[in-house]
Order: sequence, then C-alpha cells, then structure tokens
Amino acid sequence: MPHIALNSAEPGIRGLLRYRPETARPLAELTEVLLRGPSTLTRGERELIAACVSALNDCQYCTASHSAYAAAQLPGGAAVVEQARADPATAPVSAKLKALLAIAAAVAQGGRAVTAAHVESARAAGATDLEIHDTVLIAAMFCMYNRYVDGLATIAPDDPAAYAAGAQRLLAQGYLPPPADPGHES
Amino acid sequence: MPHIALNSAEPGIRGLLRYRPETARPLAELTEVLLRGPSTLTRGERELIAACVSALNDCQYCTASHSAYAAAQLPGGAAVVEQARADPATAPVSAKLKALLAIAAAVAQGGRAVTAAHVESARAAGATDLEIHDTVLIAAMFCMYNRYVDGLATIAPDDPAAYAAGAQRLLAQGYLPPPADPGHES
Repeated sequence: MPHIALNSAEPGIRGLLRYRPETARPLAELTEVLLRGPSTLTRGERELIAACVSALNDCQYCTASHSAYAAAQLPGGAAVVEQARADPATAPVSAKLKALLAIAAAVAQGGRAVTAAHVESARAAGATDLEIHDTVLIAAMFCMYNRYVDGLATIAPDDPAAYAAGAQRLLAQGYLPPPADPGHES
Repeated sequence: MPHIALNSAEPGIRGLLRYRPETARPLAELTEVLLRGPSTLTRGERELIAACVSALNDCQYCTASHSAYAAAQLPGGAAVVEQARADPATAPVSAKLKALLAIAAAVAQGGRAVTAAHVESARAAGATDLEIHDTVLIAAMFCMYNRYVDGLATIAPDDPAAYAAGAQRLLAQGYLPPPADPGHES
C-alpha cells in the first residue's frame, strides 16, 4: 500500500504523476527529451540504460516497465534485455553500448564512481560527448525515479501483461500526457 | 576537469544546463516547482532538505550551493544548516522538519529504505501527505542532480564567495532561466 493516499489506483509512477500534476509536467518533458527526443542513441538503447539502472536500484515497477519498453524497441527484444540486465559486458550489444551501460552502472553507485577510465572506454568505442552526457543524465534520472516510486511504496503489478500494455501505450503516445480535453475535468 | 568538453567554464550544474538546453528547461521547471513553488514547507526548509541529501551523497558543489540557499532563507541561517547537516535529530528545527529530514536521508540510501515508521513519525509531527510526497521527490531529485554533477566530474569552486553570490542570484531570479533576449544569440 502506498505510504500516502493517492487520488487514483494507478500503479508505480503513474499514480504519482496523477497526484501531483505540477511536478508531473516537467518530469514527463524531461523523460520525453532524454528517452525519445533526437539522439544518436536509439530509443531502445536508451530504454535499456533505464532498465539496467532500475534493476541495479531494485525497483520492480521501473525495471519491468523499462525492460518492456526496451524489448519493444531493441533488435533482439526481451532476450537481449535479460542478458544486458544479467551482465552487460557479455550481452549481444555494441561495444559502445556496453561501455555506456558500465557508466550507467557507476552512476547508480554514485556520481564519484564514474571514472576517467569509464569515459575513455566509452570514447574508444565511439561514444560522443553528448552520448556520454545523456547516459549519465538518464542513469541519474532513474536514480530519481526509482527512489520516487519505491520511497512512496507505490504498487507494482505482478502481471507481465500490465507492462506489455504499458509498452504499447508508450509506443503510441510517448511520455507526454495527451493534451487536456476541454470537455472533461482533468 | 569535466569528463566531457563543455561549452562554458561555468561550474557544477550551471555548465551542464548551458551544455544541453533541451534538458535544462524541464530540469529548471521541476526545481522551481519543488523548491520555490506554492507549498506549506518554506523555501528554507526545502533547501535544507536539498543540502542534507547532497551532503549524504558527498556532492561538494550541490552541498555548498544549497547550504548557502538554505542559510539565506532559514531562520538561524548557516548555523542551523550546519547543525542539520551534522545531525538532523538534534538540530534546532521543528519536529516535523526533523522527521522529513529522516525520510530524505532514507531516500538517499534507496527508495526501499523509507519505512512505514518513517512516514508515521512525520505524520505524527504534523506532516501532510503532500509534504511527505514533496520531501521524497526533492530528496530523489537531488540523488539525480548529485550524480549528474559528479558523474560528469564538473568543477566545484573552493571559494565560499562563489556560493554566496549564487544565493543572491537565486533569491533575485529563482531557478528558471531569464527569458531569452531576442537581441542576442542564446
């Protein structure tokens, strides 16, 4: 049961976004820019970073959600996501993505855990400065979301179908809320 | 030296916001809403939460910045900020703020570290659900910022005057960037 009385039965971050629309709007914009905006990293690669960080932070809701989103957008699908979560270094992903996942794992430990050697490895594998920047910020953003979702003890559905449905919704709509319908409250 | 080539010499998060304006905008909006928007927590109390979390995460730039911002807006000033950072439980702040600082410290450890007992203590001291929500999100947001700032190895000035000047700028302008001047580039 969530630590506070929410105004909906929606699970995970969805209930929190509905509870506090003033913070939901910039959070949605930030997520849309980082995970779906113009980038030389694919949407699937960025969702994989989100899934791996959420798994390291032991956040069931975010891990299941972003694993489903990554699986829906990454060549190789769910099998690759599982392998990357288990061991990024041996997963069938590019050398660049392996190096970026190592940076993301360091960020999950703490900012000072990211070393010059991590960054040099990523650059040697072809990562640009902007890709390194975005990887750090995506990982840091999920260190926020994972704590937000679990710090308020929100509900994580057990049924994988809930997350598969979430992935279809994401592909259709993205992270931004639909424009307000003037004919309805909220 | 920062891990990536920034486009300015600005320290800490200021250089990162200038480097990536697409993410800077929603980040500034989120911070403005949470730390300065309408709330039953004072701006000084919210900055104190930010300073204490940043100290727990060992982020020199954010700790010095938000300690200065808290000191400028909290009755008791810098002395109270120092005491709260050293030991929130014995600092001369309200019982409610002590309980919220305990929640924030748990969030810094991880979302699952926030217990029902933490939340009951805060509620017994008069905290509302919205105050508990905002405390968790402020603490989580600084777990993001601390990792963003240190994960990219940005520079933290040693001179306290730099942070005092930052506090005056914050009081005058808030977190949102000034409106673009159409007569100048950027």
